[in-house]
Amino acid sequence: MAEARPASGEDSLIARYFKPLATDPGAFALDDDAAALKATGDDIVVTTDAIVEGVHFLPDDPPDTLARKALRVNLSDIAAKGATPAGFVLTLALRKVDEAWLGSFAAALGEDARHYGCPLLGGDTVSTPGPVMISITAFGRVAPDRMVHRAGARPGDRIVVTGTIGDAALGLDVLKSGPVSAALGSDIAAREMLAARYRVPQPRHRLADVVRDFASSAMDVSDGLAGDLTKLCKASGVSAIVKVADIPLSAPAAGLLARAVVGVEAIVSGGDDYEILCTIPDGRLTAFLRAAQVAAIPVTTIGVVVPGNAAPRFVDREGRELALQRLSYSHF
Amino acid sequence: MAEARPASGEDSLIARYFKPLATDPGAFALDDDAAALKATGDDIVVTTDAIVEGVHFLPDDPPDTLARKALRVNLSDIAAKGATPAGFVLTLALRKVDEAWLGSFAAALGEDARHYGCPLLGGDTVSTPGPVMISITAFGRVAPDRMVHRAGARPGDRIVVTGTIGDAALGLDVLKSGPVSAALGSDIAAREMLAARYRVPQPRHRLADVVRDFASSAMDVSDGLAGDLTKLCKASGVSAIVKVADIPLSAPAAGLLARAVVGVEAIVSGGDDYEILCTIPDGRLTAFLRAAQVAAIPVTTIGVVVPGNAAPRFVDREGRELALQRLSYSHF
Repeated sequence: MAEARPASGEDSLIARYFKPLATDPGAFALDDDAAALKATGDDIVVTTDAIVEGVHFLPDDPPDTLARKALRVNLSDIAAKGATPAGFVLTLALRKVDEAWLGSFAAALGEDARHYGCPLLGGDTVSTPGPVMISITAFGRVAPDRMVHRAGARPGDRIVVTGTIGDAALGLDVLKSGPVSAALGSDIAAREMLAARYRVPQPRHRLADVVRDFASSAMDVSDGLAGDLTKLCKASGVSAIVKVADIPLSAPAAGLLARAVVGVEAIVSGGDDYEILCTIPDGRLTAFLRAAQVAAIPVTTIGVVVPGNAAPRFVDREGRELALQRLSYSHF
Repeated sequence: MAEARPASGEDSLIARYFKPLATDPGAFALDDDAAALKATGDDIVVTTDAIVEGVHFLPDDPPDTLARKALRVNLSDIAAKGATPAGFVLTLALRKVDEAWLGSFAAALGEDARHYGCPLLGGDTVSTPGPVMISITAFGRVAPDRMVHRAGARPGDRIVVTGTIGDAALGLDVLKSGPVSAALGSDIAAREMLAARYRVPQPRHRLADVVRDFASSAMDVSDGLAGDLTKLCKASGVSAIVKVADIPLSAPAAGLLARAVVGVEAIVSGGDDYEILCTIPDGRLTAFLRAAQVAAIPVTTIGVVVPGNAAPRFVDREGRELALQRLSYSHF
């Protein structure tokens, strides 16, 4: 068991680094045992995601990128549900107090909290003999019963994704000096772009209202497009056909695929994209695309929802189905 | 990094053990990326507490007691804030999938969720190479602006605690075969009572409405009475005088104190009590005591709030102040 020590240790740590982030009145300046989310008539959307050193991030990942990733993976969920950020609570398990690490972590977390309008409401700081773990539960507000679900996709709906797919998995390979890293050689721009996609997701919060207003179903792509689409189809009781050639790729990803450094499987089953996957009723597609353009979020139609309960099929230009063995990332 | 494996591992784990606990419609049977707390006009009280193997619990603690403790430490906070449980999200970091462990953990968690009316709304299961960690964020509902704060105590208010103080710290010593264990010898009843107080807190949820209606300030005692009262006084801008002889003790704790196996300091600075500490305006004390009796929760008046910003003073029968070095437990 940890030795008992004066309470001032944990309290002053929280005061110094995290109190400046607790800008919402409902955080009570972190001086209370609980926070309050004020009743506004909206439903509260709740999502929770944890990242563990050595599993979800590398031991030498910079603390500022960890802070941003830990918060943004949750903001990505909130956006995909059509909700607006309302705040978050943080559980931080640390081996020791490293003031430089904490200062950098808290500063970046505070910047993101301000940028996304998602203030720190409370938290718990605990010691651990093991890996660093950052667990965030984030809250969003959405008009009553308007949260967008995984269930809701119907045959004929068009399947849409934001941004580009597969970059983060390639970026992880760069950081681990794997085959992608070797193939990219000294192409610093590509290396840095892919690594940044792994380390610092870009939640699509500016599309949240559009998703709420147009999507029949939605989720964020965190465990790989193929696996996550499978989950969405299962929840909706439908199947899907995706045209592989239509999946949006970044220039580095397209280059690696063209050179056969990686296969399609690595692209569609890699995790950590944090893009929004949603289905749009066919008759509303044009209006949706226009609204996405106004929100300045790139979106691409990649397929169509079909009846049935088979796993989604990924087809090439000739309509031949690609066999995907590894659908997505799982921790167990 | 963990190996990528079929998503069915994590998903089937969640389905088998945790879906049965997701009884609230807002949990969407754990089939979505987020849960929803329906707008009801109440404020949502949010609290989060994590427990780490080797720090907050012992590696051989039974999984059913861990599940109960992880949830109940949060329910204790919610009760102290005058709120009614509304649900919780769970983050579980595990080294491996141990079905017997998980089965026992989930069954006990489900029992407590039902008993306290606090259903599982969602969660995240992650693998870790390190110690098991259980992080829970729990929600309560309270009428707008009626959450009870640490701040609010005024000079003249009476200081009240529920139950008995110090048992859990003595119970930890029993489990660790320390001096308390040696002194108790074969007194199985006392050993088991104290160990149970450490392992399975009894949240005072039945007193929540009474706290909301009568208390000028409140918090739960989790880091030791002396330290937690210091925090409450600091938040309220007051000081306090506590009569040590009035602090409610269990029979085993009183016996150990009488035999000088432990000192007062071990009682008032030991953690894990999970009792409610609150202040009651003097003119409302009688009505409060009556309401607590109706709720069947034992409460004891132990002191009075006084002006000033000094640390609370703990005095003996002759009014002499006891010097307390170690006010409370801290992780750093």
